[in-house]
Amino acid sequence: MHRVAHRADTIQFPEISHTPNSGSPMPPSKPDTPQRNDGEATPGTLYETLADDIAHSIQAGTLRPGDRLPSVRQASASRGLSPSTVFQAYYLLEARGLIIARQRSGYFVASTRRVLPPEPEAASQPADESTTLNVSELVFDVLASAKQRELVPLGSAFPSPLLFPLPRLAKSMAAVVQQLDPWSSVDDMTPGNAGLRRQIALRYLIDGLTVHTDEIVITNGALEALNLCLAAVTRPGDAVIIESPTFYGALQALERHGLRAIEVPTHPREGIELDALARALERHRPSACWLMTNFQNPLGSLMPDDKKRELVRLLARFEVPLIEDDVYGELYFGNKRPTPAKAFDTQGLVMHCGSFSKCLAPGYRIGWAAPGRFAREVARAKLTSTLTVAAPTQAAILHYLEKGGYDRHLRQLRQALMQRQDTFAQAIARHFPPGTRATRPAGGYFLWLEMSAGTDSLALHRYALSHGISIAPGPIFSAHGGFRHCLRINCGHDFDDRTDAALATLGRLARLTMQ
Amino acid sequence: MHRVAHRADTIQFPEISHTPNSGSPMPPSKPDTPQRNDGEATPGTLYETLADDIAHSIQAGTLRPGDRLPSVRQASASRGLSPSTVFQAYYLLEARGLIIARQRSGYFVASTRRVLPPEPEAASQPADESTTLNVSELVFDVLASAKQRELVPLGSAFPSPLLFPLPRLAKSMAAVVQQLDPWSSVDDMTPGNAGLRRQIALRYLIDGLTVHTDEIVITNGALEALNLCLAAVTRPGDAVIIESPTFYGALQALERHGLRAIEVPTHPREGIELDALARALERHRPSACWLMTNFQNPLGSLMPDDKKRELVRLLARFEVPLIEDDVYGELYFGNKRPTPAKAFDTQGLVMHCGSFSKCLAPGYRIGWAAPGRFAREVARAKLTSTLTVAAPTQAAILHYLEKGGYDRHLRQLRQALMQRQDTFAQAIARHFPPGTRATRPAGGYFLWLEMSAGTDSLALHRYALSHGISIAPGPIFSAHGGFRHCLRINCGHDFDDRTDAALATLGRLARLTMQ
Repeated sequence: MHRVAHRADTIQFPEISHTPNSGSPMPPSKPDTPQRNDGEATPGTLYETLADDIAHSIQAGTLRPGDRLPSVRQASASRGLSPSTVFQAYYLLEARGLIIARQRSGYFVASTRRVLPPEPEAASQPADESTTLNVSELVFDVLASAKQRELVPLGSAFPSPLLFPLPRLAKSMAAVVQQLDPWSSVDDMTPGNAGLRRQIALRYLIDGLTVHTDEIVITNGALEALNLCLAAVTRPGDAVIIESPTFYGALQALERHGLRAIEVPTHPREGIELDALARALERHRPSACWLMTNFQNPLGSLMPDDKKRELVRLLARFEVPLIEDDVYGELYFGNKRPTPAKAFDTQGLVMHCGSFSKCLAPGYRIGWAAPGRFAREVARAKLTSTLTVAAPTQAAILHYLEKGGYDRHLRQLRQALMQRQDTFAQAIARHFPPGTRATRPAGGYFLWLEMSAGTDSLALHRYALSHGISIAPGPIFSAHGGFRHCLRINCGHDFDDRTDAALATLGRLARLTMQ
Repeated sequence: MHRVAHRADTIQFPEISHTPNSGSPMPPSKPDTPQRNDGEATPGTLYETLADDIAHSIQAGTLRPGDRLPSVRQASASRGLSPSTVFQAYYLLEARGLIIARQRSGYFVASTRRVLPPEPEAASQPADESTTLNVSELVFDVLASAKQRELVPLGSAFPSPLLFPLPRLAKSMAAVVQQLDPWSSVDDMTPGNAGLRRQIALRYLIDGLTVHTDEIVITNGALEALNLCLAAVTRPGDAVIIESPTFYGALQALERHGLRAIEVPTHPREGIELDALARALERHRPSACWLMTNFQNPLGSLMPDDKKRELVRLLARFEVPLIEDDVYGELYFGNKRPTPAKAFDTQGLVMHCGSFSKCLAPGYRIGWAAPGRFAREVARAKLTSTLTVAAPTQAAILHYLEKGGYDRHLRQLRQALMQRQDTFAQAIARHFPPGTRATRPAGGYFLWLEMSAGTDSLALHRYALSHGISIAPGPIFSAHGGFRHCLRINCGHDFDDRTDAALATLGRLARLTMQ
C-alpha cells in the first residue's frame, strides 16, 4: 500500500479542457484520447495535458522536490481519467526528468534540480550583404566523418537508426514487393504513388492543413524536395534569404544553383527576426526565402504561430515564395505538432517540404514537396533530374502507414529524444567551461552551443576528430564563416559512458582552444 | 527419325574460333562455353557463333528457303559441340525469324523472306549553331502519356516490365530488408553500398574495362548520374555537344543547367560523325559532349570500336569530357557486349553512366556514374542534391547480383527484344506508307522511322492519342524542333493483335498527315 504524503494531496490540477471518455472504460494499454487516422492518439492527448499541468505545478513550486505524487489509482479516480492515462503522464514526466519512480513507493518530484547550461539569448547579427557562396571543404569533412562508425557521432545530422521501427518496415517491404504490380514502376512515377500521396495529404488534414493529393510530389528525401523547390523559383544570380545560422544543405543548394545568400538575424528560440526580414526583402528583392520554422537546424528554434502568420503575410506582400523545410516538425516534445507556416498561406506561395527520413524510415529516402502554386514546376524538375522515386520504397512506406502504428512509434520516438536532450544538456553543463550556453529546443535532436568568445570550434573539430569524436563546428552553418565559437551537438544517439567521456573530452578541448 | 535433305549436308560451316570443350561432356542444359562471373556464359558464346555462321550462310544464299538444317545430333557430332549448344543456336535463329521448327521434321530455313522497311542511310544535318533550349510541353505530354495504361505504349521510353525477373528481385529485397543492418542507412550513403559498387566494377572488368570501386557513385537511376556529370563539368552559359537526334532527357538537362546545345550530324547506324564533331569542337569550344555510343536513343546507332577510339582521342585533344550514356549497352543482339568508349580512355575524361533500370530492375532506381577524374565532384553534387540512394534498394540489387542468374536473365531478355524488334519491323513494313524507312538497331528496343518528307509526326501524335496510341514524335529529340517527319517506336512491349492494329492505324494516319 502506498502512503500518501500530505502535500501530495494538495496538488492543484488545473482543469483539463478535453472531456474524458469516461463512459466507456478503456483497456489499460489504450489511453482515453481522441482518435487519429490509424486509431491512435492525436497530439494534445489527455495524458500530455495532465503531465504539463503537473510540470507546471513543479515549476511554480506548488510541488517541491521530494513530494510524492498521488498514486495512479487516486489520480485516476480524482480526475476521472483512466489509469493508463495517468500512467502515461507519469511516464512522460519521468522521461523529462521531473519525477522519479521509487520501487514500491510510487512517484516523487525529482529531488535535485537539473543543472542545465544557460540558454543563448541574442539573435545573430550577420552582415546585411549578399554573399556568393563557396562552401568549404569542411562541410564535406563533417559529412564524411558521419560515415565513420568508430567516431562518437556528436557531429552527425542523423538520429540513431536504432530509434526506428526497422523490423516493421521490413515486414511492410517484404509484403509489398512480393505482390508488387509490375506496372507500378510506371504508375508510381512522378508525382509518385497515389496512395502514399493520399496518406501524406491525410496527415496534413489532421494537422489542420488542406493540401490536395495533386499538390504533393514524392522525392528522394526532403533534400531533393528543397532543391527542386529552389530550382523552380530561382535563376542563377538571384538572391535568396536564409536564417543565420542556417542548415549547411541550404548553403550548398544555393551554391549549386549559383544563387546569392542573404543571411538574416535569427533568434535562438523564435527563429528569424521579422523586422530584419522586412528590411532584407525591401533591400535585396530576393527570389525566395528558405527557412526552417520548426526546430530549426542548427538552433532548434520554433517560430510561434503568430510570428508564422506574420511571416507568411510579409512574404506575400513582396510576392516571395517561402521554401519551408519542416523535416523536424513531427519531433515535438510539447502537446501538439507545431503548425507549419503553410497553414497560414492563402496565396500558394509556401512550398512545404517534409520527409520520413527523420521520423520513420532512415535510408528509405522518401520525402515530398507540397509546393503550392509551383507544384507543376517542381514535378517537372523532378522528371528531368532524377525521373522518379523507387516504386518498392514508396509502396513499403504506404503499407506501413496504412497498417497503423506510426503515431505510437512517433510518441515513443519523441519521448526518447526529449529524454536524451535533457541528459546531453546536463552532461554539457557538467563538462563544458563556464560561460557555455546551450539551446533548449522543444523538439528535434540538436543542441546549439555558444561558447565564450574566442573559443575556436574549427580547432575543436580537428582536436575532437583526433580523439575519435565528431562535432559540427559553427562556421559550416554560415555563408561567411561566422559562428566560430559555436557548435552543434547531436543528442539523438544513445547516451552512455562513451558519450559522457566524449563530452568531457570536448569540454576539456574547448578550454584549450580559447584564446 | 529425321530424314536428312541432301542440301543440308552441304552446309559449309566456317570454322569456329573457340576450341570446344569436347574432352568433358556437358549436361544438355549447360552449353559448353567459357564461364562468366556467376557461372554463366560469356558474350560471344559458341552457340552464338554457330548461329551467326548459319545466318551468314542463309544471307549468302548457301542455304535457301525450305532447306532443312542438319539434326541436332548430326550437327553436334560434325562440329564437336554439345547438343545443347546446337539447340541454343537453333533457338536463337528461330527467335531471329531465320529458321522455323516443324514438329517431328526438324528445322528449316524460313520459307518466306521477311519484308522489312529500308533503313535510313544519311546522317542528320543540323544547323551548326548553338541553341538556347526551351523544351516544349510536348516532351512532358509524351512522358505523361507513358503513364496511361489504356494507351498502346509505342511512345513509351520503357520496355515492358513483364520482361524482368521481378519475383526473384522481390525475394532478394525481402531477404535483405529482414536482415538489414540499421546502420546501413549511414554506411551505404553516397558514394553508395560498397558491395554493389564492387559488383559493378566486376562487370566492367569482365567487359574489359578497369574501373575501380572508388570511382563508382551510385545514383537514382542513370538520369541522375548523367545530370550530376553534366553539373560537374559545366557552368551556366556553356556549350555542350549532343547527337542529332538526341535523347530528350539530354535536352531537358541542358535546359535545366542553362547550357547551350550544339547538335552534331549523326549517322543512323554508326553514330555521331567525327569530322563534324571535330569542326564543332574547334568552333564552339564546348565544356562537354553527351553521347550514347551503344544503341543510341532514338536512332539505335552503334558506334564501331575504331570510331569510339578515335572519338576519345579527339575529345582528349580538346580536353573535353565525354558524358557517355550507356544504359542500353547490355541489350545487344550480337556476340558480345559493345565496348563503351570509356574502354579507350587514358585521361579520365570519360564519365560513363549506367543503370539497372533497362536491363534488370525497372522502378528500383539504381544507376551509377563512373566519372573518371571527376568522381569526387560527382559524389559531392550527389550529396548536396539528393544526398544518397535508398539503402534497401541498393542492398536488394546487390543480393540479386551475388546470387547469380543475371546473365541468364539478360540472355532471355536480349532474345525477346530481338524477336520483338523483328516482328515490329515487319508490321511496320506491312502497314506504313511506301517510302517509310526504319532503323535496324543491333540492340535495345527502339525503332526510328523516317517517313516521306512532308509527313507530320506532331499531327500524327495528336491523331494517335485520340485513337488510344502513344508515339514519340521526332521533334522531341531535337533542340530546334527538327525531325518532324520522324518518330520513335518502342518495340519492347508484347506484340499482339492490339499492337498490330495500332501500327495499322498509325500507318493509315501517317498517310493522312502527308502534305
